[in-house]
Amino acid sequence: MQITRVITERLSGENMLTDSQFATYHTEGFVVVPDVIPPADLALVRDDVETLFALDHPGRMLETDGTTVRGVHGCHQVSSLFDRLTRLPRLLGAAEQVLESKVYVYQSKVNAKLALRGDVWPWHQDYIFWEREDGMRTPRAMNIALFLDDATDFNGPLLFLPGSHLLGTVRTERRSAGDDWAANLKADLNYQLSPRQLASVAADLGIRAATGTAGSLLLFDPRLIHGSGTNMSPQDRRLLLITYNSVDNAPVPVPNPRPEFLVSTDSTALTAWEAGLGA
Amino acid sequence: MQITRVITERLSGENMLTDSQFATYHTEGFVVVPDVIPPADLALVRDDVETLFALDHPGRMLETDGTTVRGVHGCHQVSSLFDRLTRLPRLLGAAEQVLESKVYVYQSKVNAKLALRGDVWPWHQDYIFWEREDGMRTPRAMNIALFLDDATDFNGPLLFLPGSHLLGTVRTERRSAGDDWAANLKADLNYQLSPRQLASVAADLGIRAATGTAGSLLLFDPRLIHGSGTNMSPQDRRLLLITYNSVDNAPVPVPNPRPEFLVSTDSTALTAWEAGLGA
Repeated sequence: MQITRVITERLSGENMLTDSQFATYHTEGFVVVPDVIPPADLALVRDDVETLFALDHPGRMLETDGTTVRGVHGCHQVSSLFDRLTRLPRLLGAAEQVLESKVYVYQSKVNAKLALRGDVWPWHQDYIFWEREDGMRTPRAMNIALFLDDATDFNGPLLFLPGSHLLGTVRTERRSAGDDWAANLKADLNYQLSPRQLASVAADLGIRAATGTAGSLLLFDPRLIHGSGTNMSPQDRRLLLITYNSVDNAPVPVPNPRPEFLVSTDSTALTAWEAGLGA
Repeated sequence: MQITRVITERLSGENMLTDSQFATYHTEGFVVVPDVIPPADLALVRDDVETLFALDHPGRMLETDGTTVRGVHGCHQVSSLFDRLTRLPRLLGAAEQVLESKVYVYQSKVNAKLALRGDVWPWHQDYIFWEREDGMRTPRAMNIALFLDDATDFNGPLLFLPGSHLLGTVRTERRSAGDDWAANLKADLNYQLSPRQLASVAADLGIRAATGTAGSLLLFDPRLIHGSGTNMSPQDRRLLLITYNSVDNAPVPVPNPRPEFLVSTDSTALTAWEAGLGA
């Protein structure tokens, strides 16, 4: 309780989540906060992302076609602008508000989902990967996605089973044996829900698409069941994703840790960046 | 004019298209007519489709996974129930009304788009295949689709660029040489629109999903640009498709005709089946 109060004081005046957004996050497992990043700042981020996409870097993953960039991981480790973005008071404040503690960046990435080529992400929960592969002990973490493009019904928006985070971790079988972390970045994820599991949950909860304008934020719980379809539109649907973890929830050591660009081992609490993204 | 009048008299009292539906078809290139086939008849059709899916037959096509049925072609040639369906006054009457002549079945099929497995159909126009591969001389033909399952935003519904039929045939390059009709039944179609063509048309016309309840009909123009994404839902999205062609528009002979299950050579005018589907 002390921690929460201190943070609220430090960030007072910032646009953290409203009571209604906070409640939606906890009941539905996700909430879209529209138009948070102004166009000029968004342009800076998009330029930065283009540079990251062009950079030959182990965190850059390709689609099954072998040429289209599917995503880039560990962005905050290689880009100072990306690092500042993770520390903007509006993003950092929301993460601290939800996780009720200081936080650090556990993972950061950009998912491309390019026009007419972006491929499927099967239905899954994020937390099971972090728990089983990385040694994370509790789901006291949160994803904040920034829409780099408008997300529409037709360009492969994130799809959620609303409220499914309250089911906890749905037990799935690991699909392949061995130390193949790369499989978890491709269309054939290791921990997918079975058709039967999915049918049962979706019949209860329905499916919802997270659509919104470029510059909006999407906050979602790491246990929320989500996936996304192909991008059938001629418009890209790039999504920047920051996973914040509570500093009290840093993973315990595991025998075969995933690469640093997937799991940041530096759990030092983030400090707010007040000077503006381009500063 | 004589032909139109005669047909109208013969089918008077049948539920053909209303003026509003007829106008929508011509301006948008498609129209959904809800709840045409009653549940009892729909159950008969679905049973019949299951039989067709299980039948080892050259018209049966698999997804790229090599096991999931993607579609079955030439259904009216092997199933008497399917043949009666094509001749139900409500379907046949609509086809005769739009094509202003007697008609025959040019093609019939069922597209599976099964839950969590059904794959993409890239953006294309139907007519260019029939014109270039089959010798059809004018687009005086029409597709009538019957929804065998509810079509929702999440199970890979047909997507249309509304009004694109008025653009005529968008010239595309044939993607592969030779006599490979099978390529046209798979995810990698021979006549796809280029990303640039699609971006240009979609920016003008937008994208629309054809959703509706099982038992509804979807009528669409063979020049209308359409495609569909993956089925991300746990619900199948099976679609039965009948292409009616005017008896005055039977193709001219071509050097390498496609198989009979893809292009029916019997252009005898259909007669209405008045006795009910199960009779």
